[in-house]
Amino acid sequence: MTRKVAYLGPRGTFSEEAAMAYDRESQLVSFSTIYAVGEAVRSRIVDEGVVPIENSLEGSVNDTLDLLINQKELYIRWELILPIEHCLLTKTEVSKREIKVIYSHPQALAQCGKYIEKEFPTVQMVASLSTAAAVEDMKGSLQPSAAIAPKRAGKIYEVKILSEGIQGNQNNATRFIVLSNMDNDSTGSDKTSMCFSFDEDKAGTLYQTLGELASRGINMRKIESRPTKKLLGRYIFMVDIDGHRNDAVVRDALSRIRAQVSDLRIFGSYPRWKESA
Amino acid sequence: MTRKVAYLGPRGTFSEEAAMAYDRESQLVSFSTIYAVGEAVRSRIVDEGVVPIENSLEGSVNDTLDLLINQKELYIRWELILPIEHCLLTKTEVSKREIKVIYSHPQALAQCGKYIEKEFPTVQMVASLSTAAAVEDMKGSLQPSAAIAPKRAGKIYEVKILSEGIQGNQNNATRFIVLSNMDNDSTGSDKTSMCFSFDEDKAGTLYQTLGELASRGINMRKIESRPTKKLLGRYIFMVDIDGHRNDAVVRDALSRIRAQVSDLRIFGSYPRWKESA
Repeated sequence: MTRKVAYLGPRGTFSEEAAMAYDRESQLVSFSTIYAVGEAVRSRIVDEGVVPIENSLEGSVNDTLDLLINQKELYIRWELILPIEHCLLTKTEVSKREIKVIYSHPQALAQCGKYIEKEFPTVQMVASLSTAAAVEDMKGSLQPSAAIAPKRAGKIYEVKILSEGIQGNQNNATRFIVLSNMDNDSTGSDKTSMCFSFDEDKAGTLYQTLGELASRGINMRKIESRPTKKLLGRYIFMVDIDGHRNDAVVRDALSRIRAQVSDLRIFGSYPRWKESA
Repeated sequence: MTRKVAYLGPRGTFSEEAAMAYDRESQLVSFSTIYAVGEAVRSRIVDEGVVPIENSLEGSVNDTLDLLINQKELYIRWELILPIEHCLLTKTEVSKREIKVIYSHPQALAQCGKYIEKEFPTVQMVASLSTAAAVEDMKGSLQPSAAIAPKRAGKIYEVKILSEGIQGNQNNATRFIVLSNMDNDSTGSDKTSMCFSFDEDKAGTLYQTLGELASRGINMRKIESRPTKKLLGRYIFMVDIDGHRNDAVVRDALSRIRAQVSDLRIFGSYPRWKESA
């Protein structure tokens, strides 16, 4: 049976690009929300699912963090980082100077703000649900219009690519994770993701917990907080560290952390993305 | 001259409620974005500005965090916490069973999802730019419709309040901050907010910095990370601690932290909100 990999759709999004970069052999299946991708993996309708977790300009994708926190049967199996490059797409018969409206996802509009301001100072910007939806909105528009979307969306929807690389900041990259029902064996260059919270709100509690990592020389890659949704000012901490959860030193630190926190959850260990790969 | 206080508008939003709770005597001025509120304060068009910084269900308001990081002349002068209560509003001639469309800000639609599913299983949900805009969308709609918004919006826009307290989670509260060109003197029960980043990405760097607080018994209320926008995986840490920056122990800790991090910025010290107040 063909393996199936879910992704945050529709077709032509950066998530589809990430899914293709991860696994070209599988059947890719589009889902409309991050939660739906998670449910598809949990219920084993698909084998794995690809969702964005962090962008270099916007920060964390909260829906993905909340999915990991709430969906206790999901593991992170892989990570990959894609550079984000926006293009300006139009219908074939529209020229640049005619454009009156530009459609895109609000984040993409924001990221291309300087380009739009310089090239189209009087254009109307309209928010779409995704960059792929923006291309459909543009195709259906009665006014001369353009859409900001990935290059791939231009090919899928058979429209003209007017300009490439129009995002203002060239350090635009998104980290994607592959969700699965199991994680990975050790490869020697791994990361481990986890979350925990504290029953009480005491001075130094988080510091003491992080000390279990620091005292063992375990590098913390990331720390992020999400609300517990119970009380303002009470948080769930999400931490990424270097190492595999089966490494002796990591296993030791995790068992000490488990004794201090109220609900330690390990999202899995998986190979650390190599920038050069 | 009358004091002026800016808030994230339009009229009828929770930010306006927060501005009124903060200062009933001043002239309240509505701005359409958080960035615009910050600019109005910096340029002294207004004396102070009220913006949301954190919600108990959704987490941090990234636009406010990024404003603090980027706008180096703004201080936090005050904080206040408001419970968030959503209402269902309709035009006077519409009854509950006729409603075909419900308008609101996507966060409010999500927070009232269970109520909508139970009471209006077949209704169409439409996203508006703010809860106040949802009331205007509802008033202009040709279909029998409702809007989810604060009670106050019902009064301002002269519409009918059909149901109150329809949010699923009753622990829904938002913390607002008051931005100013200066912060507050010590009151004996204060908080101090700051941000910092690190030039290099070394094991234990953050841990060592937090140790300057923990070793002095300074309670850390919150730690949050935002992207530096330079490199994926490099963060600006935003930390709230108990105490005033002029307290001897806090001053000592801050000077030690300043020596370790690459860019320490103190957003100000201000009275800690009392839940009972």
